[in-house]
Amino acid sequence: MTFFNLNARLEGDSHFVTDLTLCSVRLMKDANYPWLLLVPRKPDLVEIIDLEDADQQQLMREIAAASHVLREVTDCEKLNVGALGNQVSQLHVHVIARFRSDAAWPGPIWGAAPAEPYEDDRVDTLIENLRDAFSDRDS
Amino acid sequence: MTFFNLNARLEGDSHFVTDLTLCSVRLMKDANYPWLLLVPRKPDLVEIIDLEDADQQQLMREIAAASHVLREVTDCEKLNVGALGNQVSQLHVHVIARFRSDAAWPGPIWGAAPAEPYEDDRVDTLIENLRDAFSDRDS
Repeated sequence: MTFFNLNARLEGDSHFVTDLTLCSVRLMKDANYPWLLLVPRKPDLVEIIDLEDADQQQLMREIAAASHVLREVTDCEKLNVGALGNQVSQLHVHVIARFRSDAAWPGPIWGAAPAEPYEDDRVDTLIENLRDAFSDRDS
Repeated sequence: MTFFNLNARLEGDSHFVTDLTLCSVRLMKDANYPWLLLVPRKPDLVEIIDLEDADQQQLMREIAAASHVLREVTDCEKLNVGALGNQVSQLHVHVIARFRSDAAWPGPIWGAAPAEPYEDDRVDTLIENLRDAFSDRDS
């Protein structure tokens, strides 16, 4: 049997936020945009359709939860959701809070601007606020 | 009561393929990539979380159906799925067949290359093959 392992690049580029039923939620190390990753904790997944049907449905519930949490915590103007995986094949879903003033608006964020480091206290507060909002939703 | 109207830009940039339970499926007029749009036929939607929970679940079923159909018809190497809506706010989900040889690989396709017109007979054949594959899945 194979076990779930988080891709090293995804792990290095993001901070752990919380675990939902299916996915680990991580915050990308890029202060340009509040940017979450949902990574299903199952081995050998590349496409959404590699998930069993029930897990696809759970993934949608967790995309919705992450969307509500991001909007509540960041008061964003738009949400972007994407599963690309052209560079890191392990299945991961991006849920991104967008603002008309952000570094890539109105384009997609991928490859648009170099990652901007967070100040430590700012990222700690953001992660804490995200954890509180996820636990309030009990997803 | 408000009725569903397809945004004029989405309509102009794409061909009708078929209607699923929730979404109209359209093919983007860009021969660079086999590129489908799923547009829920409900009024006043911007975000996935503007859909009721049952419709969010149906959207995931239709994303999966479109993914299987695209892979079957195009034999693509990767699938990209995204809901952005930064330029056209009406909720629409992109499901794109990607190839390592395509115009944007490994980046996202949005804004990467000018749309490449299809030859008429080629797009007619592709639409016919997509319709057959969707009806075989009976989604």
